[in-house]
Amino acid sequence: MTMTEIRYIVTGMSCGHCVASITEEVCEVSGVSEVSVDLPSNEVTVRGATLDDEQVRAAITEAGYSVTGVV
Amino acid sequence: MTMTEIRYIVTGMSCGHCVASITEEVCEVSGVSEVSVDLPSNEVTVRGATLDDEQVRAAITEAGYSVTGVV
Repeated sequence: MTMTEIRYIVTGMSCGHCVASITEEVCEVSGVSEVSVDLPSNEVTVRGATLDDEQVRAAITEAGYSVTGVV
Repeated sequence: MTMTEIRYIVTGMSCGHCVASITEEVCEVSGVSEVSVDLPSNEVTVRGATLDDEQVRAAITEAGYSVTGVV
């Protein structure tokens, strides 16, 4: 099974609490199997068998952050 | 009844989640009636009828932050 990966640039993440909030929301999206957040680069990397970009973006917004682009 | 106030300088606070964590812990300290956090100045202001400085500092540490001084 192929793994898809999308790397989002997200603004407003500043600490471990932010990482936890985003990880929690995005993990709940169907198809997502892995979420990793890198604070210094503002990157949220999402992996899964099938990724719905729109749903992932909605989850990040729901957590209170803004997607400003993809890498 | 006189209100006492202590203003602590606290490092490591970076976002609203940090404010919530500190406020929650410090509010639980006996005698504390008000906690306000100002992120830009790194200040945590604590007010109450009787304040136990040591217990307030312990609560801030418990929340995961460091008191570096008082104003």
